[in-house]
Amino acid sequence: MREITVDDLDDLARGAAILGTGGGGDPYIGRLLAGAAVREHGPVRLVTLDELDPEAAVLPVAMMGAPTVMVEKLPCADQVARAAEMLSAYLGLEPTHIACDEAGGVNSLIPVVAAAQLGLPLVDADGMGRAFPEIQMVLPTLYGVRATPMAIADEKGNRCVLDTVDNRWAERLARSATIDMGCSAMISSYAMTGRQARESLVPGTLSLCAELGALVRSARAANTDPVGAVVSRLDGRLLFTGKVVDVQRRTVTGFARGDARLSGMDGDPGELVLRFQNEHLIAERDGAVVASVPDLICTLDAETGDAVTTESLRFGQRLAVIAAPADPRWHSPAGLELAGPRYFGYDLDPVGVAR
Amino acid sequence: MREITVDDLDDLARGAAILGTGGGGDPYIGRLLAGAAVREHGPVRLVTLDELDPEAAVLPVAMMGAPTVMVEKLPCADQVARAAEMLSAYLGLEPTHIACDEAGGVNSLIPVVAAAQLGLPLVDADGMGRAFPEIQMVLPTLYGVRATPMAIADEKGNRCVLDTVDNRWAERLARSATIDMGCSAMISSYAMTGRQARESLVPGTLSLCAELGALVRSARAANTDPVGAVVSRLDGRLLFTGKVVDVQRRTVTGFARGDARLSGMDGDPGELVLRFQNEHLIAERDGAVVASVPDLICTLDAETGDAVTTESLRFGQRLAVIAAPADPRWHSPAGLELAGPRYFGYDLDPVGVAR
Repeated sequence: MREITVDDLDDLARGAAILGTGGGGDPYIGRLLAGAAVREHGPVRLVTLDELDPEAAVLPVAMMGAPTVMVEKLPCADQVARAAEMLSAYLGLEPTHIACDEAGGVNSLIPVVAAAQLGLPLVDADGMGRAFPEIQMVLPTLYGVRATPMAIADEKGNRCVLDTVDNRWAERLARSATIDMGCSAMISSYAMTGRQARESLVPGTLSLCAELGALVRSARAANTDPVGAVVSRLDGRLLFTGKVVDVQRRTVTGFARGDARLSGMDGDPGELVLRFQNEHLIAERDGAVVASVPDLICTLDAETGDAVTTESLRFGQRLAVIAAPADPRWHSPAGLELAGPRYFGYDLDPVGVAR
Repeated sequence: MREITVDDLDDLARGAAILGTGGGGDPYIGRLLAGAAVREHGPVRLVTLDELDPEAAVLPVAMMGAPTVMVEKLPCADQVARAAEMLSAYLGLEPTHIACDEAGGVNSLIPVVAAAQLGLPLVDADGMGRAFPEIQMVLPTLYGVRATPMAIADEKGNRCVLDTVDNRWAERLARSATIDMGCSAMISSYAMTGRQARESLVPGTLSLCAELGALVRSARAANTDPVGAVVSRLDGRLLFTGKVVDVQRRTVTGFARGDARLSGMDGDPGELVLRFQNEHLIAERDGAVVASVPDLICTLDAETGDAVTTESLRFGQRLAVIAAPADPRWHSPAGLELAGPRYFGYDLDPVGVAR
């Protein structure tokens, strides 16, 4: 994919929601904003990591907050551009490229909005290869890229720049500001050179999103198996097919936290429990953990293959739960320290998906 | 007073604690920091509002947080200068003067530290004529001066710049950041021109602090009545003399909140209750409110005349409780809306002290 046009946005949004592993925010709002921005400013040029000038000035942008809130409190049109502009003014540098902090949901589309509005190319990559709930949980952290200076903007016109001693402090201060701002805000952080981007980002994320979205769309059109197409493209595994029988969800400390219980269908007497913090963290089948962070656990509509985000889980949905391998760097000791099960309070080794 | 030398600091600290109306932070830490800064960098030149060039670039600085925490978590030496420097870098202007946001306790001394370290003169004035607990509660708010851009720095090296739609939003975001930073931080806010300072600040505050401190010191030396000397200088009124018999104090939402009960001495069967949020807000004698914000309610040691701050109130202390009139602008409708009893949740008209 060389550029993102209005026609690409449906596939992109559909695929992004899958990589969002239940989080990353519902892509619907992002899809609307991106549509409006691309119609107004024209297609967004995509640049691969290989093409990126090592001296490029790359500004990643994202939406931060609880997905449960993002679907109700709408951002304003220029909010993400204001965050990027505040950061570039603070840094005193002209950005040459926009990038994605995370793959998934709204956060694959918000950078399209910023790139269109600021007239900048977008890097076909992201900082995780999936979505994770906290600021410091990006591969650039493993490469010593600082999350701050970081800008946060709300839809009312409030803005902050944070400059912290480490990326965990960036998460802490940004989370409180986001909560004050009403549990969702736009951020620009991890400003980096092209060299740092080439080293630390996951390549090809936006192309992969668009490809996944197209696979689901064509499988549906051809009446074949969209879930199977996704599993096969991601080298993943179908964990469970079942009906949602219970969802516990609460918006606390700025996150959508909770768990969902699924009962097997078609004579399967088993049960699957999903535990999430914005994103799915753990899948337990009949009490045994069958998949965990850092690998991807995605909930798809069993029929259509569309991703179902954690904030829209509800009783009676028929879901296919799949697992897919994360970028291998997440399985390094430093990667697991940042986003493995123990970080999230589960005392277990990661349960991975063989590639 | 034309300059502040090391020899002036004891009187300044003693008087500042009185105007702090129970809050503004214990001046002990501020006294130590100011002593070190003035010894290292030399005396700080004081400039009156009358002398201030209308085009001057004035940066007020302060410590923000719960006084209960400030006495335990020590600031680092250059913390306040870092806040001022971050703000001036963000604004892209070279400050010509430092000023005080509030009179009282640590916040009359922290600006001395910043002025000495940055080699700038200090304006003999402040934004309140007393201490108040929240950021927006300064007279400059009444004159349309914006609290933001505002910088916050902690002792660990974390810093933020806030840029908000109004001064209440500055309070909200800064309070959360301060809580994250451990309930105390250094701030620089309300950057203003000399013209705005002359219009909106309370003149002569630092001189008044030094004068009050000297009055108490000499009354003590002469074995006369230090409390009476303070009451007379402030055109105030002695409300009560009594012994502290109960203190309820809790650190919540980043403030030291609570109330204290005093029993009359020398045959007085009465009782006085003080309600505070960092600063004393209300004094009730035998159930009737006898003084309230915006006027000053100060607790002094009945013997020595030294101010007793809300975080150091304890059983058995013998206190003189005095009231003194606030700057008359606080009694305007806009002033009362900002810091009158109703703002703090007390459904009553202000009970003032006749001048």
